[in-house]
Amino acid sequence: MMAILFQKVALVGIGHIGSSLARVIRRDGLAGQLVTLDSNPLHRAEALELGLVDLATADPAEAVAGADLVILATPVGTYAELAAALAPCLAPGAIVTDVGSVKMAVIRDVGPVLPEGVHLVPGHPIAGTEHSGPSSGFAELFQGRWCILTPPPGTDEAAVARVVQLWEAAGSMVEIMEAGHHDRVLAITSHLPHLIAYTIVGTATDLETSLQQEVVKFSASGFRDFTRIAASDPIMWRDIFLNNREAVLEVLQRFSEDLTALQRAIRWGEGDKLQELFSRTRAIRRSIIDAKQA
Amino acid sequence: MMAILFQKVALVGIGHIGSSLARVIRRDGLAGQLVTLDSNPLHRAEALELGLVDLATADPAEAVAGADLVILATPVGTYAELAAALAPCLAPGAIVTDVGSVKMAVIRDVGPVLPEGVHLVPGHPIAGTEHSGPSSGFAELFQGRWCILTPPPGTDEAAVARVVQLWEAAGSMVEIMEAGHHDRVLAITSHLPHLIAYTIVGTATDLETSLQQEVVKFSASGFRDFTRIAASDPIMWRDIFLNNREAVLEVLQRFSEDLTALQRAIRWGEGDKLQELFSRTRAIRRSIIDAKQA
Repeated sequence: MMAILFQKVALVGIGHIGSSLARVIRRDGLAGQLVTLDSNPLHRAEALELGLVDLATADPAEAVAGADLVILATPVGTYAELAAALAPCLAPGAIVTDVGSVKMAVIRDVGPVLPEGVHLVPGHPIAGTEHSGPSSGFAELFQGRWCILTPPPGTDEAAVARVVQLWEAAGSMVEIMEAGHHDRVLAITSHLPHLIAYTIVGTATDLETSLQQEVVKFSASGFRDFTRIAASDPIMWRDIFLNNREAVLEVLQRFSEDLTALQRAIRWGEGDKLQELFSRTRAIRRSIIDAKQA
Repeated sequence: MMAILFQKVALVGIGHIGSSLARVIRRDGLAGQLVTLDSNPLHRAEALELGLVDLATADPAEAVAGADLVILATPVGTYAELAAALAPCLAPGAIVTDVGSVKMAVIRDVGPVLPEGVHLVPGHPIAGTEHSGPSSGFAELFQGRWCILTPPPGTDEAAVARVVQLWEAAGSMVEIMEAGHHDRVLAITSHLPHLIAYTIVGTATDLETSLQQEVVKFSASGFRDFTRIAASDPIMWRDIFLNNREAVLEVLQRFSEDLTALQRAIRWGEGDKLQELFSRTRAIRRSIIDAKQA
């Protein structure tokens, strides 16, 4: 057991990421009290049954009263409304952080409504599986993974340091980054791959039934890898695309141009162009293996 | 050890798939003699060192003389020239099969040059990793995976049955299919996913160096899964796209339309459309898990 980092932690949303973080906080005794605010009564009941939290409530005031750390772990589209409901109840000096996959939107939606003296330290653990709900979480989810924090300029350094401590306790490596830069990097590494996986799996669901059954049967030939990504939480991903629109559209445009060029090379039988690209992409895999991210 | 299925097997190409098959044939004693024909002297030396074959040669006549089974396991683009070189040396009654990812092209390129009395039984094991070369193979590669055979109408049934026996010995489940149908199914399950993975990884390699390093660093958020696919053998994949052009272009067109529709939904903030698609794609993942292909 480590030293207590926070007197009271309020976890807003006890889904896959929220419940994994709850398990870390429990395991290491990082909080005097751990409370969840969740609008879903099934999730509240499950969190209590699993012994993940001391209290599960649908009442914002009860959840955050006296909390020195509030963690938003719901889809990004809920943040604006949530922040408005929580703001009047927040204790002076409280830290508000989150685990969302877009970061400019957090600063835009949450920052302005927080009272003076409350610290906003947006965060994004680069971790997760395609599963959802309180029972899908596990304490080791963040082990050896990156967590990016994007505190706006001028954020209290002590507040940032306490959030860093939380993620380091979870086994993560922490990187501090400007929010807009985060959103551009993640548009490439995460949002575009998900968008494409959703599209290709969607294209397959539009096939006639007999062909679709064969796609499932022979999915091990490449398709399967996309279906795992395309099984991620629909609401969460809807909110990511709606809240990182510019960066996603920009990188999607580049991708479409590249795909069109490749399509043309196939149509005209330009084998050299295909081979050149296919050789180039191999090197990136090597870099990822070297960076121990494979 | 099983009973000998073939007196002499000639493996044309001792790369990832060829060497895996050689390991199966060795393990189960399926061939009286196992010979490889490979133009790469390093691969020939490696195959002999690893004890995968009795003989490794660059001479087509020496390789296939007296062989009752010839297995083409080189990139599909080499088949026409290879078949022309092998044809005069083939023993009467020999079976010629292959492991290529496209099947119409095999019937087109190999079928017409084979002498009367030689049986063509095209095949495609739905198995493989992103690795290449004789040392990358392993006997368990085909265990529990599908192998599709596409014998042209009128093919000798006894010849087909013997190729089925080989794949069943390797642990595969065998499916007989019309070659054109195979090429359409695989265009969706394999060729399009690979094309898209190559494209997105290519798009990332065009980024400025600093951003590229961050893409590698934070690749666990989705991108990483694509890089594994995009590390597949460049020549093999060039040949697949050049030899399954129509089916690939047709399914690529569908994909592009679907991607454009999604792009538009993001631009205009149509969350309902995104959520509807993202929910639909989850079901396919479920089917794949139920079909034990996950």
